[in-house]
Amino acid sequence: MALLFYSKVDDPEEWTDALKRAEPALDVRVWPEIGEAADIDAALVWRPPTGMLASLPNLKAIFSLGAGVDHVFADDDLPDLPVVRLVDPALTSQMVEYVLLAVLDRHRRMDAYRAYQARGEWHQLPAADTGACRVGVMGLGEIGQAIALALANLGFAVAGWSRTQKQLDGIQSFHGAGQLAPFLGRCDIVACVLPLTAETTGILDARAFAAMPKGAYVINAGRGGHLVEADLMAALGTGHLSGAWLDVCQEEPLPPDNPLWSQPNVTITPHVAGWVLPRTASVQVIENLRRVLAGNPPHNIVDPARGY
Amino acid sequence: MALLFYSKVDDPEEWTDALKRAEPALDVRVWPEIGEAADIDAALVWRPPTGMLASLPNLKAIFSLGAGVDHVFADDDLPDLPVVRLVDPALTSQMVEYVLLAVLDRHRRMDAYRAYQARGEWHQLPAADTGACRVGVMGLGEIGQAIALALANLGFAVAGWSRTQKQLDGIQSFHGAGQLAPFLGRCDIVACVLPLTAETTGILDARAFAAMPKGAYVINAGRGGHLVEADLMAALGTGHLSGAWLDVCQEEPLPPDNPLWSQPNVTITPHVAGWVLPRTASVQVIENLRRVLAGNPPHNIVDPARGY
Repeated sequence: MALLFYSKVDDPEEWTDALKRAEPALDVRVWPEIGEAADIDAALVWRPPTGMLASLPNLKAIFSLGAGVDHVFADDDLPDLPVVRLVDPALTSQMVEYVLLAVLDRHRRMDAYRAYQARGEWHQLPAADTGACRVGVMGLGEIGQAIALALANLGFAVAGWSRTQKQLDGIQSFHGAGQLAPFLGRCDIVACVLPLTAETTGILDARAFAAMPKGAYVINAGRGGHLVEADLMAALGTGHLSGAWLDVCQEEPLPPDNPLWSQPNVTITPHVAGWVLPRTASVQVIENLRRVLAGNPPHNIVDPARGY
Repeated sequence: MALLFYSKVDDPEEWTDALKRAEPALDVRVWPEIGEAADIDAALVWRPPTGMLASLPNLKAIFSLGAGVDHVFADDDLPDLPVVRLVDPALTSQMVEYVLLAVLDRHRRMDAYRAYQARGEWHQLPAADTGACRVGVMGLGEIGQAIALALANLGFAVAGWSRTQKQLDGIQSFHGAGQLAPFLGRCDIVACVLPLTAETTGILDARAFAAMPKGAYVINAGRGGHLVEADLMAALGTGHLSGAWLDVCQEEPLPPDNPLWSQPNVTITPHVAGWVLPRTASVQVIENLRRVLAGNPPHNIVDPARGY
């Protein structure tokens, strides 16, 4: 069995080692050294170039190197094959850590304390009341649910919003386009971990920001395409939003001259909220590859119409 | 029943309101307007001035306005009366939040990402492996236990150190002076939430830092007296320690010319890790006051020999 590996941001050696530990007989071909294209049974990819996958005549499945698959569907010449996402517990844990960090940094006013420190000022702010802090999680899949529950465990007043209705203990649940504005209206902090689909592209726009209460804070750990950066800059400029924490941007890498870099109260990280770890994820890729070769449907297959 | 309130950092009006909600018949006397000293049954204090408590002839108990009581025992003229600490669930939650924030900020390399952002650089660091990150919690009372369990829930490799032996699921436990160096030797991040006693004063000194592995990170959310600041500066200077996050200092407020303010990789907050909240804590103070007046021992009484 032969697997094509393609990514510009993941280490091919580390992945090859991990995949071969999970299946010693696996033949890993790292792009562009693909050998005979007809040998390749499946591809494990991050942002595949247009047409690359279509050029493989015996390809049977496409595995995303992430929880999201928008980067796969961006290929205009994508062959009609099962597209599989990773549901990696290590990735979920990292996303929980990342959103907890961003929420706690905001809640505990580290923006202000870092500014006081820079001036050598010892200045206490009133205690932050966690039970009164309303956090909203956009997206209630594996990752969003884990985040919502972790925040609720810390005592935050958590609500979630998703496309379809979800029931989660202790989480106020909203769903569908009609409940988006009421959901946003009760959020002091909004954290987006949605999949990027046609429906969710640009969901964090001027209208969404206007629906949030004055002083709200926005965390985007989903995709850059979820958030309209010009609208964010405008909402920060008027003071309607108090700040933002972004792991993803419309253009990545974020260009050096983009004003977001130096916008006060905006924290930027370079798309590092959650990495798929080769050690844990390889086991899942191999299991799915075996299923495909045996003629069975792989786990965590994506619905192309839904986009996740 | 009359209660004296003394604090320079807590709001007397907010406390008076909360105490009177818990016991409308309570007579709250806010220093220095104490009225007839002989009326006063108990005192609720933060850093009482020397001799103030000794001047109250009918005082029956001393309630600390915090989880720690070192600020009470600092009074050289302290009357021989029960000293009671607050065990406030709201305080514990805040301490958990604070230490999670500091650990996650370090673990997810926000020091580096903030520096990259300041330069407009999109630069990804390798994924942080949470299971391989060894965090140590010094102090395993109510607060330390809650912190250790919260960190373990996130997947960190957590150990704890305390004066006496403790057993906690999933936490490697060390105790006593003899196990301090082995404990510190396995910690990438050390978080101190010990009570300040004769035994723990200066516990984070040059010897302790030398026992930690190179690159270790120190969080102090206990008391300034736990940490020898000159030794910390030296260990940061040689690069043996990679950084520190301090909520407490030897002298508070930290003087404007103290070099800690501008030491790279040191984060300083002004003793705000955990506030006792009047709403939740007042109920406990009133219950203990009723017990004292009825001749019963209050809950959470401190052992003066042990110091906590």
